[in-house]
Amino acid sequence: MYCTYNHDSCRRQVLKSPAFYISRESGGSLVEQIVQAVASRIDDKLLRTGARMPSIRQFADEQGVSRFTVVEAYDRLVAKGYLESRRGAGFFVRERASMLSQPAPVKPQTADTQQMDVVWLVRNMLRQMPPHKMPGSGVLPHDWLDGDLVANGLRAISRLNQNLLLHYGTQQGFLPLRQQLQLKLAELEIAAAPEQILTTSGVTQALDLVAREFTHPGDTIFVDDPAWFLMFGSFAIFGTKVIGIPRLHDGPDVNKLAELAAIHKPKLYITNSVLHNPTSTSLSAAKAFQILKTAEQFNFLVVEDDVYCDLHPGSAVQSATRIATLDQLNRVIYLGGFSKTLAANLRVGFIATSPELAIRLADRKMLSTLTTTEISERVVYKILSEGHYRKHVDRIRVRLDSVRDGICKRIESLGMKVDYRTPAGMFLWTETGTDTNKLTEQALEQGYLLSPGSLFSPNQLPSTRMRINIASMSDPGVWDFLERAMR
Amino acid sequence: MYCTYNHDSCRRQVLKSPAFYISRESGGSLVEQIVQAVASRIDDKLLRTGARMPSIRQFADEQGVSRFTVVEAYDRLVAKGYLESRRGAGFFVRERASMLSQPAPVKPQTADTQQMDVVWLVRNMLRQMPPHKMPGSGVLPHDWLDGDLVANGLRAISRLNQNLLLHYGTQQGFLPLRQQLQLKLAELEIAAAPEQILTTSGVTQALDLVAREFTHPGDTIFVDDPAWFLMFGSFAIFGTKVIGIPRLHDGPDVNKLAELAAIHKPKLYITNSVLHNPTSTSLSAAKAFQILKTAEQFNFLVVEDDVYCDLHPGSAVQSATRIATLDQLNRVIYLGGFSKTLAANLRVGFIATSPELAIRLADRKMLSTLTTTEISERVVYKILSEGHYRKHVDRIRVRLDSVRDGICKRIESLGMKVDYRTPAGMFLWTETGTDTNKLTEQALEQGYLLSPGSLFSPNQLPSTRMRINIASMSDPGVWDFLERAMR
Repeated sequence: MYCTYNHDSCRRQVLKSPAFYISRESGGSLVEQIVQAVASRIDDKLLRTGARMPSIRQFADEQGVSRFTVVEAYDRLVAKGYLESRRGAGFFVRERASMLSQPAPVKPQTADTQQMDVVWLVRNMLRQMPPHKMPGSGVLPHDWLDGDLVANGLRAISRLNQNLLLHYGTQQGFLPLRQQLQLKLAELEIAAAPEQILTTSGVTQALDLVAREFTHPGDTIFVDDPAWFLMFGSFAIFGTKVIGIPRLHDGPDVNKLAELAAIHKPKLYITNSVLHNPTSTSLSAAKAFQILKTAEQFNFLVVEDDVYCDLHPGSAVQSATRIATLDQLNRVIYLGGFSKTLAANLRVGFIATSPELAIRLADRKMLSTLTTTEISERVVYKILSEGHYRKHVDRIRVRLDSVRDGICKRIESLGMKVDYRTPAGMFLWTETGTDTNKLTEQALEQGYLLSPGSLFSPNQLPSTRMRINIASMSDPGVWDFLERAMR
Repeated sequence: MYCTYNHDSCRRQVLKSPAFYISRESGGSLVEQIVQAVASRIDDKLLRTGARMPSIRQFADEQGVSRFTVVEAYDRLVAKGYLESRRGAGFFVRERASMLSQPAPVKPQTADTQQMDVVWLVRNMLRQMPPHKMPGSGVLPHDWLDGDLVANGLRAISRLNQNLLLHYGTQQGFLPLRQQLQLKLAELEIAAAPEQILTTSGVTQALDLVAREFTHPGDTIFVDDPAWFLMFGSFAIFGTKVIGIPRLHDGPDVNKLAELAAIHKPKLYITNSVLHNPTSTSLSAAKAFQILKTAEQFNFLVVEDDVYCDLHPGSAVQSATRIATLDQLNRVIYLGGFSKTLAANLRVGFIATSPELAIRLADRKMLSTLTTTEISERVVYKILSEGHYRKHVDRIRVRLDSVRDGICKRIESLGMKVDYRTPAGMFLWTETGTDTNKLTEQALEQGYLLSPGSLFSPNQLPSTRMRINIASMSDPGVWDFLERAMR
């Protein structure tokens, strides 16, 4: 019995009960077509809950397909929740009342100024709005990154001995990756044996582990002011006190650091030495030395979050010193990762520290998440060891350089100021002269996500500053909005 | 200039400076061969540190390969740390003194009875000894799992729109996977909308998030006694007090639960209701009801860790009630995952809870690790939704059933007792009549990893019990060892 339209080209067959079409020449496999056809009839209530499906044999005969095909299709329909199998009695359409309720459409959460906190911004960041609608985003848009690198890596790994996909990874992370990281650190003149390095689920987990290992509720943690906001929320829920050290063009205000350290006796000072988020400034050698001296005097650890490392063009362009290069992982815990430059979804970051602290942090990691996924770690290893990574970040830097000046000028022409006029990095830290919490609310109404200055402040006071991602300023609508707002 | 051996078949060419072989017909690409050849000469000190490499043009001409090939090879050698590029001056052999020191050979850490603690066992677990050498292992050996499923999943994902590989996942985890989990829970008669479900990096992270969200240092957490040991270490470092509730054949001793709850006012009770680790016993409906009543009376949350769910054959074989089936995620937080049944390396677990607690836990997850990797979540989704998972766990159950009785009998013939003689699951909880810490030390000397009873006890007292993984008892050496030890 054929399709009533009787197309020669497709020779669709019509099933007696229930009636639908399967084409041997269309794109999907027969199994997929049967699954699709039965599923839509159930979705459309053409097959009611509790109805008995034709037996496998009956279905196969009526459709002129093999029983194996039907078994496979029914199995998938069971897995998808459309059918249930009752032993000995056959397959039945299943109760799906509101079970697959569609999620609410992805739209930014509205926020009044009170609600606009860290958790709110990070939630919005993760909402996967189109990147050109997110001048406040902390990551590079897709088309600045290289999906092929990651896809090729996954394919290569799928062809290796499959046992490695099944077992737990190792406690510290995939050893060849840690050997690559050793080389990366050696280029920064930081000596770290693989035993001193452990992988983490991004720099976020690295910070979480470090804070949990070295602080107790009630302790004080120093951060930069401004600084990466996720930390404030994370440390606040531990019950630690977070205090900001003002950030200047070449690093923190070291006098203030010493003064506050004497008062608060912090356990940790967390800083981006290079391409600081949000200012894109980097640390001078003199300040790096001062920080270490202060850390020794008041006995705190320095956590150097160097996640923007590979966007830095070298000290000929902007002087930049890693504190760990002076200290050699004695008092400094160095963090890095690949979410910014390679792929956030791989979730690969790392900690480099003294052998003794590496053991403590690896045990802490084990108790928190057992291991990180070696699959991602092998992808990163492959991209690093084959030399692709170096070329890839070179391309990103060139592209950032090609847009930075133009965006700076255009922003200044709107009456905003760019702090520090940085020659490197992906962020501009701007002074708008207006409350950026309000600006952010207005932008959200038009579907744009900004990063108001209040978020980067450890005390989250209203601010007239705003962080701009220069890779996400291609949408004319963003400029229209800013033009109207700054008028 | 050709190979001095002058093999016709390979026509190897000898490079003038430095001299090595490249074959156009062997397995690897030309680039890989050059990389390999240069790297081994450096490793063998035939090329000394600081030596200048031939220019790209010179190398290409001498080898009869394209310059592109040489550029690529030199780039990889730079990435691997063998060469460094000095702008304008060319490529030089780099200082590698002890940089790639080989890691110590993977061998189990020796332990005296004092040191044998949770961290020690988990470290050894992760050491990737051959599975048949680990009768104490908590996971199934590779050949019981299906690497093809995971490899196919990775390949399929590498062919999707690559943008999804680059961005962060969503806060709660990949939505279609959460919809699949909704179906999985519906089969257990637990109603959970996708909004009530969040993915985690294994059940380990799920427990970590729950404990951090709902307890403070000084609070008390109840666990089963015996129970999964990783928790004890994890909670101890929070500063929470961990108290064990004796586990009987059909669940905990509920009188003891009520009695201790009155004294200690716990915040959480964490339990495996089904196929409890290590006893493989499951909860009766009556006890599930008693637990809930006690939890209400003393106002604590029940955390139901159901990671062995899919190894359970149904209540016709062993009666089994999920507490969440009675309570419907009101007071019960339900945890599950795929490390035991699919692949530990994917690191996919999940939490199902009330809508309100789901938001709190998702925020907590975001502040700890930002997101989990959607790559793994998509692999699990694919395997679930295409019906492969169901068949795969069916096969595992059949195989476990096929070995369980034989192993029980053989163990009993050695004079050991099997507690509960469970009809399901992968673990036997045995009584050896001898101190199993000592037994474990002896076994380690011969390269076998056991799980002594002390590890499963919240107070880690010496014990005569031991957990045996029935899927890891195929090595005759294990039996020889036990025979001699039990004599």
